Amino acid sequence: MYSLNVRDHFMIAHSFTGEVFGPAQRLHGATYVVDATFRREELDSDGLVVDIGLASQQLSAILAALNYQNLDDHPDFDDQNTTTEFLAHQIYLRLADAIARGKLGSSAKGLTALCVTLNESHVAWASYEGTL
Amino acid sequence: MYSLNVRDHFMIAHSFTGEVFGPAQRLHGATYVVDATFRREELDSDGLVVDIGLASQQLSAILAALNYQNLDDHPDFDDQNTTTEFLAHQIYLRLADAIARGKLGSSAKGLTALCVTLNESHVAWASYEGTL
Amino acid sequence: MYSLNVRDHFMIAHSFTGEVFGPAQRLHGATYVVDATFRREELDSDGLVVDIGLASQQLSAILAALNYQNLDDHPDFDDQNTTTEFLAHQIYLRLADAIARGKLGSSAKGLTALCVTLNESHVAWASYEGTL
Amino acid sequence: MYSLNVRDHFMIAHSFTGEVFGPAQRLHGATYVVDATFRREELDSDGLVVDIGLASQQLSAILAALNYQNLDDHPDFDDQNTTTEFLAHQIYLRLADAIARGKLGSSAKGLTALCVTLNESHVAWASYEGTL
Amino acid sequence: MYSLNVRDHFMIAHSFTGEVFGPAQRLHGATYVVDATFRREELDSDGLVVDIGLASQQLSAILAALNYQNLDDHPDFDDQNTTTEFLAHQIYLRLADAIARGKLGSSAKGLTALCVTLNESHVAWASYEGTL
Amino acid sequence: MYSLNVRDHFMIAHSFTGEVFGPAQRLHGATYVVDATFRREELDSDGLVVDIGLASQQLSAILAALNYQNLDDHPDFDDQNTTTEFLAHQIYLRLADAIARGKLGSSAKGLTALCVTLNESHVAWASYEGTL
Repeated sequence: MYSLNVRDHFMIAHSFTGEVFGPAQRLHGATYVVDATFRREELDSDGLVVDIGLASQQLSAILAALNYQNLDDHPDFDDQNTTTEFLAHQIYLRLADAIARGKLGSSAKGLTALCVTLNESHVAWASYEGTL
Repeated sequence: MYSLNVRDHFMIAHSFTGEVFGPAQRLHGATYVVDATFRREELDSDGLVVDIGLASQQLSAILAALNYQNLDDHPDFDDQNTTTEFLAHQIYLRLADAIARGKLGSSAKGLTALCVTLNESHVAWASYEGTL
Repeated sequence: MYSLNVRDHFMIAHSFTGEVFGPAQRLHGATYVVDATFRREELDSDGLVVDIGLASQQLSAILAALNYQNLDDHPDFDDQNTTTEFLAHQIYLRLADAIARGKLGSSAKGLTALCVTLNESHVAWASYEGTL
Repeated sequence: MYSLNVRDHFMIAHSFTGEVFGPAQRLHGATYVVDATFRREELDSDGLVVDIGLASQQLSAILAALNYQNLDDHPDFDDQNTTTEFLAHQIYLRLADAIARGKLGSSAKGLTALCVTLNESHVAWASYEGTL
Repeated sequence: MYSLNVRDHFMIAHSFTGEVFGPAQRLHGATYVVDATFRREELDSDGLVVDIGLASQQLSAILAALNYQNLDDHPDFDDQNTTTEFLAHQIYLRLADAIARGKLGSSAKGLTALCVTLNESHVAWASYEGTL
Repeated sequence: MYSLNVRDHFMIAHSFTGEVFGPAQRLHGATYVVDATFRREELDSDGLVVDIGLASQQLSAILAALNYQNLDDHPDFDDQNTTTEFLAHQIYLRLADAIARGKLGSSAKGLTALCVTLNESHVAWASYEGTL
């Protein structure tokens, strides 16, 4: 299995609902350093997992739609705790959709799995991995 | 598959038995920077893999029982080479036990796998991953 | 010159005023991974720059007063852009005050300089360094 | 599953053929920081995944044969785009061969999988993982 | 003293002349992860060391002129060993010139020092720091 | 001012004397990831701060004399708390001595300062910097 990873980041505000969140129920924020890891069994005819330029560009575009936002006011996340693990899944869904629509190039149809990791500090991160 | 990781560290002395260990047969020591990665298929009702506060607290408690010790004198490790990979498994067993006893909260029963990684330097690490 | 560094982090929301900030004028947030670096010419009688336990504890207490807050509503920062570099200075002032009040132990009076660095992503950080 | 990782690096020049590579069609180069991750189900009789000394030595020998080279002129890579993901596979093959020939010790025959990761910058890496 | 750092990278081929370079006399290459650290005594009226957007943009433009090049053929570096420390100085000169020409904004005239660090692997880096 | 850094590591056991050390009074240990940073005003005639091969080799030799030791039994450290900051100074002294004796090459006589940093975990490090 081959994997290729690109990294970018975004910075948001949000709050959480539920006693389990303790002080994180207050409005606060986070920097998320995002790793998008693309996987496939065989390389394409250029010797690539995916066009790294297109992959970086699409990841950046997806993060730009979330960057510098208060996620509590974001229409996509009504009544939703935007935890790190939830956001990892959301970004996975958006990247998977971009792949399906051909935005990472035609050979990206050979991708079989995608993992999105959100690093939120030097001691914590969360990820979602799914097939494509 | 969702994953969530918390990081902590401990510092111990130990020695190894067996020619394969070369100079590491002498009494020496290590800092282990520990990553505990919790996995599950679906998030719980709060949108979480696990309560990160409880996870950090339990990992810290488990490491406190090993921290600032000479593992050669530790009753749990008689006649045992406490290699990095062995210790990763030991900490896995203790965290798995804490999960089973409910110490990471009731929703932690939805966890399906756990990986414990011990980073021993900028060039070496070992891990143990198992189901729960 | 000897230096000793301890690391911790905090997570906040804020917004900025001024065209120079572009999209960061919107309410957003950040994780700040904080390095506090203590400096002195000679070690104390225990062979230390500073009691690392007290240093970590005081840094943690100072960050706890900012953690999980919307800094736009914080009484200390009225009409103030809480940029990364500004916050580095604020934390410097609070740690310097803690040192002066003896909270890092009596030998901490031998400290001559302090640098506070706030890492805000994998590509950006800011710091303030001053004498004590 | 147990894993053990060792890290080393090499520095090469190369160019790529194909429009997808854009400016990387020009002769340029890269530092690759290499992680070799060895996996097995049970530890050997010394409590090890693999003899870390032999593993580091063999990885270093394999990288030495590529280090400080222009890969465009390397006889092993005629008419081949030496992308990061391709090189990860090549180093996997060479390490797998060294294991099969007993160069990592006899107990290394218990290894079941190997992952080779090439970190090419602070924002990109690629890997190949296969069974042994 | 305040500092603010932005990070980017570039990838080049080059060779060195002189026995001291050993195997690095051959054509090879490197990834350089570049940290540009801007310093000043007081923050500007926006509470900034420098406009981080302009700083990142100018660093990126300077690195783009070197990226994906064989430095042995670069007209600026005739008969010059393009060592890591030499390149750190070159990038310092180019950034200092951009500051002087107002490309980082008018308040950047308050900057007093600049440090450029080139990280070439997980075990080596070089930097040049000078006043402005 | 130019700087060049090389990194290596060593692993030791030790204990501390004095109530300030709390549980670290017990025999324990540490991995120290060591950064040796060499500084000078002008590059030598090869465009170098120092011969990186010789610098790495001498650092490695100095660390080898400490590696896999119980520092409580080391003749050089009788009745001495081998704190991280103390060890940073010790390694500084040994590297400075190697430079003075010509072991880093004749051009190393142009070095003007040396900083030795010991990273002991993901949250703590200490260093000693002095002139040469």
